[in-house]
Amino acid sequence: MVTDEQVRESLNQILVPGVRRNIGALNLIRETETSDQTVKVTLASTALSTGAQDWIKTKAEKVLKGLSGVNEVEVEFVAAEPTEMNEIGHIIAVMSGKGGVGKSLVSSLIAIALKRRGYEVGILDADITGPSIPKMFGVTDRPGGNESGILPVLSRSGIGIMSINLLLQREDDAVIWRGPLIGKAITQFGESVLWGKLGFLIVDLPPGTADAPLTVLQSFHVSGVIIVSTPQDLTTMIVKKAVNMAKNVGKPILGVVENMSYLYVAEIDKKIELFGRSRGAEMAEASQAPLLGQLPIDPALARLCDEGNIESYNNDIVDSLGEAFLKALSAKSGSD
Amino acid sequence: MVTDEQVRESLNQILVPGVRRNIGALNLIRETETSDQTVKVTLASTALSTGAQDWIKTKAEKVLKGLSGVNEVEVEFVAAEPTEMNEIGHIIAVMSGKGGVGKSLVSSLIAIALKRRGYEVGILDADITGPSIPKMFGVTDRPGGNESGILPVLSRSGIGIMSINLLLQREDDAVIWRGPLIGKAITQFGESVLWGKLGFLIVDLPPGTADAPLTVLQSFHVSGVIIVSTPQDLTTMIVKKAVNMAKNVGKPILGVVENMSYLYVAEIDKKIELFGRSRGAEMAEASQAPLLGQLPIDPALARLCDEGNIESYNNDIVDSLGEAFLKALSAKSGSD
Repeated sequence: MVTDEQVRESLNQILVPGVRRNIGALNLIRETETSDQTVKVTLASTALSTGAQDWIKTKAEKVLKGLSGVNEVEVEFVAAEPTEMNEIGHIIAVMSGKGGVGKSLVSSLIAIALKRRGYEVGILDADITGPSIPKMFGVTDRPGGNESGILPVLSRSGIGIMSINLLLQREDDAVIWRGPLIGKAITQFGESVLWGKLGFLIVDLPPGTADAPLTVLQSFHVSGVIIVSTPQDLTTMIVKKAVNMAKNVGKPILGVVENMSYLYVAEIDKKIELFGRSRGAEMAEASQAPLLGQLPIDPALARLCDEGNIESYNNDIVDSLGEAFLKALSAKSGSD
Repeated sequence: MVTDEQVRESLNQILVPGVRRNIGALNLIRETETSDQTVKVTLASTALSTGAQDWIKTKAEKVLKGLSGVNEVEVEFVAAEPTEMNEIGHIIAVMSGKGGVGKSLVSSLIAIALKRRGYEVGILDADITGPSIPKMFGVTDRPGGNESGILPVLSRSGIGIMSINLLLQREDDAVIWRGPLIGKAITQFGESVLWGKLGFLIVDLPPGTADAPLTVLQSFHVSGVIIVSTPQDLTTMIVKKAVNMAKNVGKPILGVVENMSYLYVAEIDKKIELFGRSRGAEMAEASQAPLLGQLPIDPALARLCDEGNIESYNNDIVDSLGEAFLKALSAKSGSD
């Protein structure tokens, strides 16, 4: 007789039409029942058009009937909330009181590093009024889905991306919302995006210590916070506000990333500290967390971001950032 | 007989204790009446301690009795709202959808340029959660005043500065407020700061297109907006959101300043365009306003900002930025 496990395994491989992810990744299976030679399968209809449901049903019947010992197959769809279906290993918030220090860059590089290590990764761009993530990844498709749930858009390397900018008519439309609406938009992202199974969801926060960061830290199950800073003293003062905020709401800081640490000028083989001496160690101390990395100002990287091609950035820095992050996370998890 | 004008002129020179500005600059005179040899003067008590009022009263009596033909002097204080007393030539909002592009830098340099040209200038740091202005000017005094009004803190060169950071216990305290409170804080700044007579009030807005920018654009009598951008394509997309927001609320854009346009490396006598080719012209076109200037990345300036010494920056760029700004303002005023 066929086992539940075999049924699930076969079903999970089925690609969901138009989504580039399979049933397993989207965590669509709600129930399976095998008795005699009959298999009953209940799948979530969340975010799926009726066409997609029909397609999946036909495909599932065919696949399951191919299993030895299966004669009868019943496939049923039920409504399910995205929140019931999302299984996310860790939600990581990337924050900094200050704007323009590279939160989106750090969010993206960590996501890329984790993806390269084989994890399923998503990025939620929680910067409602100044979203950068889709542009950096060259992602412009409108998210699929319907009122039952919306689906992240996949980047070239398969990172799931959700951002308000993917929902706007034009990418330079202004979202002129007051705080409560912004908080609501973020809460709604939390409730209606079907991420499915993810190792990591990276949440890229906007600057400041107001609505958006507050909503994310309070209403998402954030495992930890990554603080992004730059060497400028001016920046460190404001970033310390974010550190204090994270402490106030009781979220552990996993580590600090210093961006724009230096510029390497090849012609004179020299590192120039454009914004003064590094304050990474100082910030790490203030955060009571390790310094995960120091990123240079790299015109090549800036260009790749502008071209929507950040995923093709090859630099040891990405890998070592990912490694340091995972190490910090496991140290924190171990100590809790 | 003594004239009203003579009376006002004499009074206006009196320095208000502890404020480094005189009665004229604070616009304290509410009424003067001269009849026979008697002068009656009504001054606003706004933001003044009773000690300061007594001091001013004694001083005023002495000064006015020194005028020929004056025998009797009556000095009275009345309550007045700061909003009745503020006479501000132009309120200019400096904005950009994007964080970290240099709004505070541009706000400061324009204020410095205008001050050097002899205007009375104030800066309102409307970035409640990430305020930079006091740090850049090395200003740490707590603002004077009382429940009737608060007084800006003067910088070394005499620019009036108001910022939430001057009111916090510690400069790295986080202001964890939701949007409505932030809007309220800004409205309260608008209502309770006694700027007195100013040629220009520069309002340094936080990133984004949410509460703070919206409140300032809607509730302050903004003459025009200055847009700050950088060459990154990523930035220009987000800055265009701010441009669209300004247009939506019907505020004229006076001009665009591009920051971080290039880095000059003296050793190789070369300008490096770290963040790609300039998009200043493109932004100016999108804003339908002139490009007021292109600022380089200048480590010396970054250092001065960190040291709280931005006012000692000497560079033709400051002067030409001020000139371009005034030209754009008069062009706009002429065309309205």
